[in-house]
Amino acid sequence: MRKVFQAELHQIGEGLIEISQLVTEGTENAICAFQGADIELAQDVIAADARIDFLQNDLDERAIDILALQGPVASDLRMIVGSLRMSASLERMGDLARHIAQLARLRYPLTVIPAQLTLTFNELARLDLKIARQVGELLQTRDMALVAEIQTAKSSISELHRSVFHAIAAPQWQESPATTVDVALASRYFERFSDHGVSVSRKVAYLVTGQWQPEDFVL
Amino acid sequence: MRKVFQAELHQIGEGLIEISQLVTEGTENAICAFQGADIELAQDVIAADARIDFLQNDLDERAIDILALQGPVASDLRMIVGSLRMSASLERMGDLARHIAQLARLRYPLTVIPAQLTLTFNELARLDLKIARQVGELLQTRDMALVAEIQTAKSSISELHRSVFHAIAAPQWQESPATTVDVALASRYFERFSDHGVSVSRKVAYLVTGQWQPEDFVL
Repeated sequence: MRKVFQAELHQIGEGLIEISQLVTEGTENAICAFQGADIELAQDVIAADARIDFLQNDLDERAIDILALQGPVASDLRMIVGSLRMSASLERMGDLARHIAQLARLRYPLTVIPAQLTLTFNELARLDLKIARQVGELLQTRDMALVAEIQTAKSSISELHRSVFHAIAAPQWQESPATTVDVALASRYFERFSDHGVSVSRKVAYLVTGQWQPEDFVL
Repeated sequence: MRKVFQAELHQIGEGLIEISQLVTEGTENAICAFQGADIELAQDVIAADARIDFLQNDLDERAIDILALQGPVASDLRMIVGSLRMSASLERMGDLARHIAQLARLRYPLTVIPAQLTLTFNELARLDLKIARQVGELLQTRDMALVAEIQTAKSSISELHRSVFHAIAAPQWQESPATTVDVALASRYFERFSDHGVSVSRKVAYLVTGQWQPEDFVL
């Protein structure tokens, strides 16, 4: 019985890793589509997000079955509840990658971001992709050093996000209202993505160390 | 033992209702602050949101304790897991009310929304407030008719949200980039708020009827 239970727990962990890999892949493709105005790739991301939603639902059902049938306690219980939370954050990261791809599709054959902000958005994209990969690595290795790295990347993203809003508010901003909105929303999607990445990383840290940090009150 | 357990389950339900009431109050105040450029009210909303975050965390801890100590099964288990999900959605609704209040504070003493869109945003606000109240009523009464009403209000909000983006993209749009961004973000906050309201209402419906609808794959 105990052996079956451990195998089921292990499968939940594997399920999270699988979802995280799909999120990373979706993010890579969304960024490519976004930077290169590639409409086919954008459509792939949009279609692939449905699979992430399905896998999240499936994982959640299995987690609930374990709760019902095994009545786990202590760290096993925390792991299952943490998985329900992490799967929700990963699913949102997939949604945000889809939103970025949808912006790319909407503006095709143009690119979404005007030239003056290309470097800023390349950096936002690079950092979000780094976070997606590090979240996957953290789920696999539980290497706590990654938690701080993800937080650092998220802080850089928050700064870049603010700089985008300053650029839009500056007198020399000459872009159309539609472009202005795209830029603002894209910046917010990149920022929310990193928030969810931090959220997953904190839950892993909590499961490993048993300690919440004060910021965890604000998930 | 059973009696204690039922009392604990009942308290979880009461906790959700309490959070929902604070969200409704925060939403009322955020909308007043947003419509009337009231900076003090905006600051109240921002401060009150911390209490929602605290209560969510407290409720989640109690739900996890029940899982650990009582090993609930079947409908009780679904209710506890559903509560963890609903508390997360309610907490996000509180965050979005705070974001709306933050926009009001940022633009004080001006209002956020230009005159031509005032009626649209009044309607968005009215519908979100309706959803917040109906979610609270649904948690109390489990009246399934409310689920459809919340969905209908959400559909109207999606249409208004789209109309805002059309207004921004129209040739006669003459607002500053900063206002354009505020309008786009505010519209998105109102729309996301309604998404979370629908999400809570579907979970209540699921707990009452035991049936997911296909759309629930996209939470």
